[in-house]
Amino acid sequence: MERNFLLTIEYDGSEFSGWQRQPDRRTVQGELERALSKVCGGSVQINGSSRTDAGVHGLGARASFRGEYGIPTDRLKLAANNILAGGKNLAAQVGDVRILDVQEMPLEFHARFDAKGKKYRYVILNDSNQDIFRRKYCYQIAKPLDMEAMRRAADHIVGTHDFACFQSAGGQERETTVRTVYSLEIFQKGSDIWIEIAGDGFLYNMVRIIAGTLVEVGLGYRKPDDLREIIKSRDRKQAGHKAPAEGLYLVEVYYE
Amino acid sequence: MERNFLLTIEYDGSEFSGWQRQPDRRTVQGELERALSKVCGGSVQINGSSRTDAGVHGLGARASFRGEYGIPTDRLKLAANNILAGGKNLAAQVGDVRILDVQEMPLEFHARFDAKGKKYRYVILNDSNQDIFRRKYCYQIAKPLDMEAMRRAADHIVGTHDFACFQSAGGQERETTVRTVYSLEIFQKGSDIWIEIAGDGFLYNMVRIIAGTLVEVGLGYRKPDDLREIIKSRDRKQAGHKAPAEGLYLVEVYYE
Repeated sequence: MERNFLLTIEYDGSEFSGWQRQPDRRTVQGELERALSKVCGGSVQINGSSRTDAGVHGLGARASFRGEYGIPTDRLKLAANNILAGGKNLAAQVGDVRILDVQEMPLEFHARFDAKGKKYRYVILNDSNQDIFRRKYCYQIAKPLDMEAMRRAADHIVGTHDFACFQSAGGQERETTVRTVYSLEIFQKGSDIWIEIAGDGFLYNMVRIIAGTLVEVGLGYRKPDDLREIIKSRDRKQAGHKAPAEGLYLVEVYYE
Repeated sequence: MERNFLLTIEYDGSEFSGWQRQPDRRTVQGELERALSKVCGGSVQINGSSRTDAGVHGLGARASFRGEYGIPTDRLKLAANNILAGGKNLAAQVGDVRILDVQEMPLEFHARFDAKGKKYRYVILNDSNQDIFRRKYCYQIAKPLDMEAMRRAADHIVGTHDFACFQSAGGQERETTVRTVYSLEIFQKGSDIWIEIAGDGFLYNMVRIIAGTLVEVGLGYRKPDDLREIIKSRDRKQAGHKAPAEGLYLVEVYYE
């Protein structure tokens, strides 16, 4: 009998060439499919909720796959995680991708097409002292950022807009560049600043370009109200730089 | 006029093939020499205090070099760090090795020969929940460790002993395997357990084998008083496993 599995996945993106399967490259999808195919005894192909770029991390990524597999979901998780851990760091038995949860879903469910929205976090270490041990895990900015100015800029982004200004060239073709940002929060965590953004969907590199633009506001290079004109322009060149992949985490994918 | 520079160095060992310069490999010494040679305009060769293995980290490593260079020490540090940062992560400008301090020393000073001792830290994440983002930075052990038992075992190690049992084959030839451990402290830091060991010198892999043996005591596989017999045996096979490089940090080098 065919079944449909929904995985919740955590990964450290620093040693992956992104999510999407590619020949001769180590990718998150590729590693998961390799492990799941062994466990299920068939060629498993998964559908991921988000094709994150190289260096981007996942805390609660999702993927689904179907097949006539008799394995209990608990056993699937344990066995796949054992394979995933073994490859990278044998001594400590800690891999850089692991399955946090496996659920069975109705056959028609699809992790990407049924996603109603996503939440990303962008992590900035805002400290005059660099932390070399976190260089793969955050964007390090020495000058103090004006969080109040960043929050006022963020208010212009929340809501339904045409976000063409925040889209890199090179992504997949989209029918429209209109998206709805449900919330955009900026808060302090020790020496870190977290930008958390939730929305119904995101254009290619949208979160990183928003983070880079907000950083430029925080540094005083742009005014908070400039965001209104930037968005209206629909012009990528009007927005700020693309913040590095290292600071970006996919936190959650929303389903009905 | 010839001058003698003493560097204090921090590095994330995870992407280095250890400290020591090797052809066609990225090493801490190699990267530092490349940067310093550019800054000084000559072929700089440094003498490091400790030749740490691949994966081992440095918080306060030391190295010295001599030469007829007119550059102020502050400028030397800044210029070398700029080169060191540029190579690895251009967007965030954070490298995986950097110079924390440069001092001028008398000409006869030598960072290795004049070292009177060293302090290492071994970091264990002792939690049933793994942290995939720290897999290069600690030894992850799910079962609770008995810290009191580990401390009683550690008491047998402190002092002057023949530590042949804690030495891996393959290191440089040493005249004697007698060393003095000044202190060996074990303490909790949140979910982490830190083993800090200071001594006049350490044999090849000595700290990692001590950490592995203490972990086996903490797990109840060995008794604290077994350490007496292990040390007396002078036999590597009697001691525990070699804990992974990822958990080891060179914290400090002592000079007069």
